[in-house]
This record gives sequence, structure tokens and C-alpha cells, in this order.
Amino acid sequence: MTLDQSIDSNNTPEIHSSSVLVTGGAGFIGSHLVEALLDRGNHVTVIDDMSTGQQSNLQIEHDQLTLCTGTISAQLESVEPSFDFIFHLAAAVGVKLVVDEPIRTIETNVLETSKLLRFASLNKTPLLVASTSEVYGKSKALPMQEDGNLVFGSTEKSRWSYGCSKALDEHLAMAWFKRENLPVRIPRFFNTIGPRQRGSWGMVVPRFVVAALGGEPLVVYGDGSQTRCFCDVRDTVPMMLRLMTTNKSIGKAVNVGSDDSITILQLAELVRDTLNSNSKIEFKAMHDVYGDGFEDLQDRQPDLTRLHSMVGTRERIPIAKTINSIAASLACGTGNEQ
Amino acid sequence: MTLDQSIDSNNTPEIHSSSVLVTGGAGFIGSHLVEALLDRGNHVTVIDDMSTGQQSNLQIEHDQLTLCTGTISAQLESVEPSFDFIFHLAAAVGVKLVVDEPIRTIETNVLETSKLLRFASLNKTPLLVASTSEVYGKSKALPMQEDGNLVFGSTEKSRWSYGCSKALDEHLAMAWFKRENLPVRIPRFFNTIGPRQRGSWGMVVPRFVVAALGGEPLVVYGDGSQTRCFCDVRDTVPMMLRLMTTNKSIGKAVNVGSDDSITILQLAELVRDTLNSNSKIEFKAMHDVYGDGFEDLQDRQPDLTRLHSMVGTRERIPIAKTINSIAASLACGTGNEQ
Repeated sequence: MTLDQSIDSNNTPEIHSSSVLVTGGAGFIGSHLVEALLDRGNHVTVIDDMSTGQQSNLQIEHDQLTLCTGTISAQLESVEPSFDFIFHLAAAVGVKLVVDEPIRTIETNVLETSKLLRFASLNKTPLLVASTSEVYGKSKALPMQEDGNLVFGSTEKSRWSYGCSKALDEHLAMAWFKRENLPVRIPRFFNTIGPRQRGSWGMVVPRFVVAALGGEPLVVYGDGSQTRCFCDVRDTVPMMLRLMTTNKSIGKAVNVGSDDSITILQLAELVRDTLNSNSKIEFKAMHDVYGDGFEDLQDRQPDLTRLHSMVGTRERIPIAKTINSIAASLACGTGNEQ
Repeated sequence: MTLDQSIDSNNTPEIHSSSVLVTGGAGFIGSHLVEALLDRGNHVTVIDDMSTGQQSNLQIEHDQLTLCTGTISAQLESVEPSFDFIFHLAAAVGVKLVVDEPIRTIETNVLETSKLLRFASLNKTPLLVASTSEVYGKSKALPMQEDGNLVFGSTEKSRWSYGCSKALDEHLAMAWFKRENLPVRIPRFFNTIGPRQRGSWGMVVPRFVVAALGGEPLVVYGDGSQTRCFCDVRDTVPMMLRLMTTNKSIGKAVNVGSDDSITILQLAELVRDTLNSNSKIEFKAMHDVYGDGFEDLQDRQPDLTRLHSMVGTRERIPIAKTINSIAASLACGTGNEQ
């Protein structure tokens, strides 16, 4: 393991010249992380089953990159537990996917995490387990704090199985930290957006961008008054890297994202205006998208106090710039939209 | 499968002359269920890993009983999927066990359930997946209704991993019901008590009974004002059997228990008085038992409307009689206290 003791502007050592495992490394956030790690001179091993990850996300010619295609449990049998750091980003992601495929969601999110934790514990390898704002469920305590309650609807609504499965991942990771001293970090990502994100899994921003570029209506689910806070993946990745190397984050859940709120209707208007599109904005009832009885969250906003205490603060990429980047990546074919 | 169409007093057919699998059949509730099934002329296969189950719970000479000792995943490889009914009661149980062994709790409760669901789906075998009032977490909406919210504390408190793991079991079962038409039923047991229950896993009633019989202090955790509703296992078992054979319960979570509330201090006094004991009642702070920051639930009471609509109502065994039964079973050595 090589931690650069010449510290960066936030007093956090950099990961470089290390051997790093990234699960889900061909996915949206994962591929940006892999590039950042390669840029810093690390050897990166990616495990991705390509269920939502894309080979084209990792079109990088790099002799320091090893790509293992398959499930974590299958691939771990053939790799040595000699990594310096492990980033665990593999997960079934997106509410729509989860409603459509609850069995796979739950099994991927828990069984594979369980196997990876056991693997990491062999050498007490520092491990970051990606979690999500979905663990707060429908909590109305805003802004959401890491020690707050997790409020899920009934198990008769499969929508809550995603948050519940990620909460159980967190419990597993915490248990390995408390019982086996495994140094785990648990970032809870809040609505990360950026180039390479795909709309086909229900993600709102790329879906709006695709529609705006094609002159198709931007379809807002519900009345559009629900609020979210979006964070550019190019801001998220440096925060993840710094969380991995500060001791303050060991054994902690940490909100990672932006706390700038925007309504989904405002977002649709911003996408349309930013891209100079003539698309209409239309509305579609939640139950027409997700089926009867679907429960959505009205407002979601992270409390970033803990994050800032661990990794400091930096200027963020404005959302209009992110929208332009997504549009550019789609236009030049690197957005991997199908 | 044989369902007796000569219906019982609650219009529910009886299970008899069938082949029934009971996981966790050597446990407290499981062994009572196994006896009831044998009494009705069924062949019963028990899978139990004997982690909390006890061989002595099943000291039954019966040519219709097959005991398989081991984990579900190991044992399922050697049995044919030819059961008429499956009762899945195997689980890491009890809050104290969960706080002590979170990794095993989570893995047992989710990984093994996942394997059993896949097994049951091979022949669409009716499957009852035992759940618990712990899935309501610290919800303050009393009485607790099946479509109500599940409110867990932060994942930094391992106490909530038990409820979270059982909630995920429910999601898995619901997913198999919705996706594969597997007929699942999900009883949520509320504080089941009775002969053979052991105090060593933190269960309050047998713990009080052992203390009262031995003239030792009855130690109340907290101030004793917290309320619970206790149900005799000999009332629980017939309700489970009827839930398995009514169509009304398919794909549903159902509270199973009593809605008679008692404070833990009242319970201590009742145990002492019922058993004519001279034991003192003492108090111990929650954090001295479970460690700092332990969060307990002040009140827990089920709404039984759904249960009664499915299986009717019957007279219940009074709690004083249950206390006497527990004491008798401990005194004659069948209580398996160690």
C-alpha cells in the first residue's frame, strides 16, 4: 500500500502506486473511479458482471487495468487477496430495476457483499462499501443525518426492498468492522449524475437529456414538486478517494452528494433551457410508471456536516455544466445509451 | 398434498397425511409445530443446524419424523423437493444473540431463506416464512398494522440488523410470490412464550421463571415500564397451521400473537406471584446489558384484525397458566435450560 504523505489541499493522503480492486468498475460511478485511480498510477482490477455495467465504459487502453467479467463470488476464487484497497460499487441500482427484478436486486446486494467482506477480512484490506440515500427510505427528517432513522414502507411494496437490502449491506459491513476490525467506510450516495449514466434504468437526468436532445417530451413522474439534490460524479469520485484514506471515516456511514435542492419540474425546465430544446414537459402519474401503490419520496436532502468534517469542502460543478456534459457524452456516443 | 375438506370450527381445512418440511424444527416454536403436525398424521422432515435448536426438544420416538442436522443449504442438496408444505422457522433469534453475533444473524436469516425460496419454487410448494414483530423496529404507530412503516435506527446500532434482516426475508418471499406465484405466507410473531423456551438467549419470561424458581432476583432491564404482548406457543401453533391452509393469507404478512399488553415490571411481579417466589425484583440499566447506545422499544402491540379475518378467533391460554407451564417444564428437565 502506498499512501502519499505529501498531503493534498485537504490534508488527506492520495492513493497512488497501489493495487486496487473496484467491483462494479464498468458501471457509471465505477468507471469514473477507475479512471481516476489509473490517473494516479494505481493498478486497478475491475470485477463487473456487466448486468448494468458496460464494457464501453472502460474503453481505456491501459496496462495497469485488469477486467474480470463475472459475479464477485465467482471472480474472487481466482484472485489473490493482495489488494491495498477495495471499492465495492457493484449493486443492482435504480428504483425501476428494483421493482422489476426484486429477487436479483436483493441477492446481488446482500449475498455478494457478504462474500466480499469475508474476502477483505483475510488481509484486513481497507474497504469502501457504496450505499445510497435510499437507506433513509421515506424518512421526513430533513436534512437526512447519518444517525437518523431508516423508515421503510411495508414489505408488500417491493420499492422498499432496495433500501432495505442496502441497509443490510451496511449492517454487515458494520459487523465486520466491529467484530473483525475490518476498516470499512460506507458512503451513502445521493443522486449522483454525469456522463455515461444511462436513462434506461430509470435515472431521471439522462432520461430528460435524451428526450430534450431528441425533441421528445420530457416526462415528469408525479406532479414534479418532489425535490432532489444532484451531485456530479466528477465531484463524487474525489470525495470517495479522500474518504478511503482518512481515518475519520472508518466504521462510519457518510452522506456523499450535494445539498442543493431542485424540484423535478425545475430540473426538466433547466435541462430543456440548457440544451436549447423545444421539447414539451408532460406529466405521468407515478402508478402508470411503477404500478399501483408505488410510494415515492417527496423530498430528499443530505446533511453534509459529517462529510465536510472528514474530507473538507471544495467548489462543486454546477448542474447546468453537468447537463451539458451528459448531452455531449450522448452526442459523441460515449454515453452508452441504447 | 392432503387437505381435509371436512373443515374445522373456523372453516379452515386441516393439514394431515402430508409430507411437511420444518426448518428450525428443533427450536422452541418449531418443536411445538412438529408435534402438532405428527399428531395430525403427517410425515415431518426437520432441518435444524442446532445452533439454538436442541436435540432434546425433539425427544419424540416417531417413525414419521426425519431429523436432518445441518444448515438448510447443505441439507437441501440431499432431499427431494417433494414436500406438500414447508414451514421456515430457522432463524437466528433474540435480540441479545443478534447484538453478540451480527454476521451470523444476517447471513443465516437472509442467505438460507434465499436458498429455501428457490427450493420451494421448484414445485411451487406452499411456504410459510416466519417473521417477527422486530420488523416494525421502533415504530410508534400502535397497534402495529401489517401495512404500516418499518422504522429502524441507524445501521451503526447492530440491534436493528435483526429486524432489517427479517424485513429483507419478507421482501424476498414477497418477490417470489409476485414473480413466480410461489404461495408464501408471512406470520410476524409477537413475543411467543411457552415450555422449552430458553432464557439464555435473552428471552424475558423464561429468564424471570428461572430466577423465581431459584430464589434469585428477577432482573428487569430498564425501568420496566416498557410493554409487550405475550402469546402462548400452544395458541401460536394452531394459528400457523390455519394460516397455511387458508387462501386469504397467500402473499400477505400477518401479525400473530396476543394483543393483551403487560409492562415488564408487571410481568416480573406476575411471575413471582404465580410461582409463590420470594425473589426480589431488581433493575439493570439497558446499557449494562446490551452496551452503550442500545435502543429498545417502549411499547409493542399488534393489530390482530388481519389475523382474525383469516383464521377466526379462539380463546387464549392466560399468561399465568403459561408461566406455570414454563416452570413445570423447567422443573422436570424438559425446558432445556443450561
